[in-house]
Amino acid sequence: MFSFDEWLECGLMVKIRDPLHGTVELTLLEERLLDSAPMQRLRGIRQLATAYLVYPGANHTRFEHSIGTLALADRICREAGVSDSSRPKLRAAALLHDVGHTAFSHEAEAVLCRHIGSHEQVGKRMIEKGELGDILSSEFSRREIAELCGKPLGAIISFGIGADRMDYLLRDSHYTGVAYGVIDSDRLCSSIAMMGGRPVLLERGLEAAESLLVARFMMFRTVYLHKTARIASRMLQQSICLAMESGELSPCFAIGMNDSGMFGFLSKTKAGGELARLVASRRLYKKACSLPASKFQERRESIGKLEEELSDSCGCEVLLDVPHIPKSEGVPLEIGGKIRQLHEASELVLSLEGAEAQRLEVLVICEKKHVAKAARAAKRLLS
Amino acid sequence: MFSFDEWLECGLMVKIRDPLHGTVELTLLEERLLDSAPMQRLRGIRQLATAYLVYPGANHTRFEHSIGTLALADRICREAGVSDSSRPKLRAAALLHDVGHTAFSHEAEAVLCRHIGSHEQVGKRMIEKGELGDILSSEFSRREIAELCGKPLGAIISFGIGADRMDYLLRDSHYTGVAYGVIDSDRLCSSIAMMGGRPVLLERGLEAAESLLVARFMMFRTVYLHKTARIASRMLQQSICLAMESGELSPCFAIGMNDSGMFGFLSKTKAGGELARLVASRRLYKKACSLPASKFQERRESIGKLEEELSDSCGCEVLLDVPHIPKSEGVPLEIGGKIRQLHEASELVLSLEGAEAQRLEVLVICEKKHVAKAARAAKRLLS
Amino acid sequence: MFSFDEWLECGLMVKIRDPLHGTVELTLLEERLLDSAPMQRLRGIRQLATAYLVYPGANHTRFEHSIGTLALADRICREAGVSDSSRPKLRAAALLHDVGHTAFSHEAEAVLCRHIGSHEQVGKRMIEKGELGDILSSEFSRREIAELCGKPLGAIISFGIGADRMDYLLRDSHYTGVAYGVIDSDRLCSSIAMMGGRPVLLERGLEAAESLLVARFMMFRTVYLHKTARIASRMLQQSICLAMESGELSPCFAIGMNDSGMFGFLSKTKAGGELARLVASRRLYKKACSLPASKFQERRESIGKLEEELSDSCGCEVLLDVPHIPKSEGVPLEIGGKIRQLHEASELVLSLEGAEAQRLEVLVICEKKHVAKAARAAKRLLS
Amino acid sequence: MFSFDEWLECGLMVKIRDPLHGTVELTLLEERLLDSAPMQRLRGIRQLATAYLVYPGANHTRFEHSIGTLALADRICREAGVSDSSRPKLRAAALLHDVGHTAFSHEAEAVLCRHIGSHEQVGKRMIEKGELGDILSSEFSRREIAELCGKPLGAIISFGIGADRMDYLLRDSHYTGVAYGVIDSDRLCSSIAMMGGRPVLLERGLEAAESLLVARFMMFRTVYLHKTARIASRMLQQSICLAMESGELSPCFAIGMNDSGMFGFLSKTKAGGELARLVASRRLYKKACSLPASKFQERRESIGKLEEELSDSCGCEVLLDVPHIPKSEGVPLEIGGKIRQLHEASELVLSLEGAEAQRLEVLVICEKKHVAKAARAAKRLLS
Repeated sequence: MFSFDEWLECGLMVKIRDPLHGTVELTLLEERLLDSAPMQRLRGIRQLATAYLVYPGANHTRFEHSIGTLALADRICREAGVSDSSRPKLRAAALLHDVGHTAFSHEAEAVLCRHIGSHEQVGKRMIEKGELGDILSSEFSRREIAELCGKPLGAIISFGIGADRMDYLLRDSHYTGVAYGVIDSDRLCSSIAMMGGRPVLLERGLEAAESLLVARFMMFRTVYLHKTARIASRMLQQSICLAMESGELSPCFAIGMNDSGMFGFLSKTKAGGELARLVASRRLYKKACSLPASKFQERRESIGKLEEELSDSCGCEVLLDVPHIPKSEGVPLEIGGKIRQLHEASELVLSLEGAEAQRLEVLVICEKKHVAKAARAAKRLLS
Repeated sequence: MFSFDEWLECGLMVKIRDPLHGTVELTLLEERLLDSAPMQRLRGIRQLATAYLVYPGANHTRFEHSIGTLALADRICREAGVSDSSRPKLRAAALLHDVGHTAFSHEAEAVLCRHIGSHEQVGKRMIEKGELGDILSSEFSRREIAELCGKPLGAIISFGIGADRMDYLLRDSHYTGVAYGVIDSDRLCSSIAMMGGRPVLLERGLEAAESLLVARFMMFRTVYLHKTARIASRMLQQSICLAMESGELSPCFAIGMNDSGMFGFLSKTKAGGELARLVASRRLYKKACSLPASKFQERRESIGKLEEELSDSCGCEVLLDVPHIPKSEGVPLEIGGKIRQLHEASELVLSLEGAEAQRLEVLVICEKKHVAKAARAAKRLLS
Repeated sequence: MFSFDEWLECGLMVKIRDPLHGTVELTLLEERLLDSAPMQRLRGIRQLATAYLVYPGANHTRFEHSIGTLALADRICREAGVSDSSRPKLRAAALLHDVGHTAFSHEAEAVLCRHIGSHEQVGKRMIEKGELGDILSSEFSRREIAELCGKPLGAIISFGIGADRMDYLLRDSHYTGVAYGVIDSDRLCSSIAMMGGRPVLLERGLEAAESLLVARFMMFRTVYLHKTARIASRMLQQSICLAMESGELSPCFAIGMNDSGMFGFLSKTKAGGELARLVASRRLYKKACSLPASKFQERRESIGKLEEELSDSCGCEVLLDVPHIPKSEGVPLEIGGKIRQLHEASELVLSLEGAEAQRLEVLVICEKKHVAKAARAAKRLLS
Repeated sequence: MFSFDEWLECGLMVKIRDPLHGTVELTLLEERLLDSAPMQRLRGIRQLATAYLVYPGANHTRFEHSIGTLALADRICREAGVSDSSRPKLRAAALLHDVGHTAFSHEAEAVLCRHIGSHEQVGKRMIEKGELGDILSSEFSRREIAELCGKPLGAIISFGIGADRMDYLLRDSHYTGVAYGVIDSDRLCSSIAMMGGRPVLLERGLEAAESLLVARFMMFRTVYLHKTARIASRMLQQSICLAMESGELSPCFAIGMNDSGMFGFLSKTKAGGELARLVASRRLYKKACSLPASKFQERRESIGKLEEELSDSCGCEVLLDVPHIPKSEGVPLEIGGKIRQLHEASELVLSLEGAEAQRLEVLVICEKKHVAKAARAAKRLLS
């Protein structure tokens, strides 16, 4: 068993070229993780699910994002003075942080979640046993492996200004060509310190952190929640639901597939086939109308019923796409010697959260020819 | 006399390479303007006055910014459908919009303004007569020339999301290496329409405009109001004041100088020489303490007196740097068929203005060795 | 029927965001072409076939490259003064220039070509009839459609410094993170003129053109001919060959598939399945040894036999990957009033071609455990 | 006295933001060097002397280039495994490598050199005594300081693919907007090893090194030897010569000035004033004609006489600008276990050197109104 320092000394590093971070160096263990089947599968899972239908360049995958997250997590470690014994664990955790994602990531997760658990839970199972567990156990103890998915050190990867978010904003910006995601990762990485075992933002990074949260807000508005991408995602979700209800798709089976595998599979199902084929050939439903999302948060449970009523009333399939209102995320900030939450200290961040909630819309979608009918029915039933 | 279309057809264009906008094409008239003494002088005036003392790359000048502003103004014209007869005027106005700046631009303007007028007023005089007036009169009527500096069409250059601001954010970002200034000029330029002869932001550009205003806020926090740059600026202002009071510097004479000319001149004055030499060799005053700027807005007039009291009480020179709290700028926004102001429609923009005012600080500065003394005195006298 | 000018005037343009060229505008006709099944299929065909196995970011597709080629071709048209009546045709031709590519593009073409023709021939058939032909005939005559694929005007797209090549160098560079592909498309586009109906490089573009050809050489050395990507490609080719020989894969059927469809299909064939599965899971053959390619050019026909001999002699499958030595491409250059060929006028270009031929290598590849054996056999049989 | 490791451990680093290399960290000693008068003077010396007259963005200075060279030299040290005891010396040497440059750098050096020595010699004197010597002696011995300017370790900074060259290519490209200077510094830095105390290029960096040399060639053709910049430089040289001949400018005095100081000084001299003022206001001489430089190499000594003859024959001042044909620079390359020279191993590099020599031109320049006359005289006298 080698320590991280020994790896470095031995020069036993593999070099990978990344368009965002330049040359990223991996240890041989990390290379084995990367070459494993579960990680190679991520090569087939687009980071932005259906956004490529709007932004033709958005074909980047969770595979390269995993490498980028490792690179940034390692940089935070170095700058924040994380101990050399923790770094290899954190690097591995960063590399594996998305391994539990199914095809179409968050889009499919929304409907698969109650069957197989969240992508974090799926990931945890994959890391603790099977191919990944075997590789990891050559260097880490069972206890260390279990910790890989946990907090608080892992917050370096997952907290509100962590390595995961930094990487995906930069990456999504690079591949879509939308400038908003350009953040100052340099400054951010050097403005995080470890306090009580947790990453904390230092005051000198206040603007850099605000800027990241603004960038994220902007990316949501222009890319992540782009109308056309949402329509395609909702159609896919419906296709998956129908295929599961008909028994044609087993939730467990979904774990092993990538985007195109899932597309191919769904296309051949009786229940969900038509919707999947429509998405694959970009013959998408259209927006009939939109409604403020705020009203729908308390009746999320009844969305299925609302869709049924709408569909019955129109004599055609009508779907609702109801976005989640993101909850305020804590970013601990050290300011004037005290720890506060970023959104308490920054009026700007607070207003972002307000603006985000306020602008979210529920989309009512259906086939183009039924749009007028559906808009009328939605007005009648939903306002 | 050629029309703009004829220029284009004749291919009588001069090409200039700009790091931000690629190849920028100028008509022969515009080239003559650029080659005039008043415009060539801008080659010696740094866009960011003293920021190069903090960001070594910030040596870009108002000369290149003028070319970039022309490029963006022209692009807005094309996208917003401004008539071909107005375009040449607007291009010329963009090229000349900063010609009235003295050395150290806004920093010096603060103390020179009451003697020679604002840079817009100085610019207007330069455009209406002398070398620039002569060149312009070969293509434009006297009335047209007078209009070059005016509104409302000129708002394309100068309004809150106009060509001037777009260019300087992009440019300052490129040369300082601070990422915050990266904006989506592509989307902004295509989200401005002319209504009633004025540029108006269309709803589809809402996020792009918010993003620009956030970028500007961030650049203020990290670059424009960087402590060290402010200290150097305040010292220079004081040097200019002293040189004027002693009669060594005539305000009119200041108009013809560039940054290094002014540096050289001030260095040799009896009254302001020492301060100028300290700045030139980067032996800067230090911050003794800072105070919220909000309290100082109503007593701007008494700042000179406060400085005197502080200096007397400490037995050494103590200066105050009091930033202006920017006033809310109207950006007309068309939303749902009505025209509103951007900061009314966007909670985010509103909170930016709040944050900007709230975070501004007055700096108390003096020689390093007197810092403790000055801090104590400031506490006593100013709180 | 609308003319291109009328489209522009009507504002009937669709906007697409491209990371390289910013906003690209398409006419409604072009949008219909893009939404057709043959073009949508290109979303599933990676520009760089197997290079993503080495450069994780290289997931960009021929779909976005097609849009980028249109953007650059249009720009050359504007700068070179191509008539407005020819521009719509050239734009359509640029958009469709790669529509005949099968899965894995050039890699598969090498083995499919003698069955179904080159990708240009396949493309021509797709353009003249079927969905694309129908869409095109709404604006173009039969004769015009036939011309879309031809020269000499089309040389703007396809010649040695044409829109196709400019776009792929920039794009491959952006997505792999390898800097070599950065070229000065600005200068190139403005250094091409039409003479006798053909694009000709003007002397002022000499360095820009040389630089493009150097960039291409460098990209070949570091990306396109990267050892690992070549091994994966050769394995895929072999898998396709075996599947065709066994009758499991019909060449015509290959035309309709994208990369992952082909992967899925091959994986299930008896004859070619194992090789395809090895590539899909990145368990690749290794290089046993390499030999200068120059010696193999005259015996390309006998490569199959050589592989058999090697395999027999080793008792395991041994494959040869023999690159084509690219032939000198004419780029007409106007220099001192005469038209010459670029490689005649530029010692640098000439030496590039020499260096390219000289550095090409034939790879001998096989399973890792047989590497030593295969290297010995290759030495014996091939030198 | 602190070791470099101790600095790092103590966190006693100063951070500077560079547009090319992001955050660059300096030790406190390095910061003192940077704040010294000789280094601060470099803030006023443009990297590209007169190129800003053609490329308006080219206002970057030798000050920021010095910081960038330190950053890249340090990176090579780390990757090539240079000992920790040598790194601080090499970093200091990189920071100071251009401190001996006068105003207008190489342009003025050409005429000042025989009076005060090359910029390396001037630099050596400045480093060994005075302000810089004092600062350095707090950490280094007298012998170590003398070594700072020497080889062979210093070759990391100065050899054909060293830190100096990498930085200026990247930087000149960033500020001019000319794409050619984009090089793969990532790959280059990791392809240099120390052998026998000297930096040697490893075979895996062959293409990266070739690419750098091509980039340099291209930058020479489009930027460094741009006609207009050369004319301005030649005029300045002549102004300096005349001011020295008339005794108005003492060569020693020139060492302390920056670009604008020299401009101001020359403008006021009787002998050289007119030429300096013409350049300052961009009223430049024009090219009368050009001739292949190859013929002039052996008669460099007689250029002054040729100019006189030309001027006499025309009745006006005619100047010749004769570029140096660069001599082949050795870059040791390890290939197949042996050390060779890069230009011997690479046909491409060899042809570059050929092309460079072949395309160089001598410019014959004079006032615009005398151009025809001068062209005729040059034809008569020089061919």
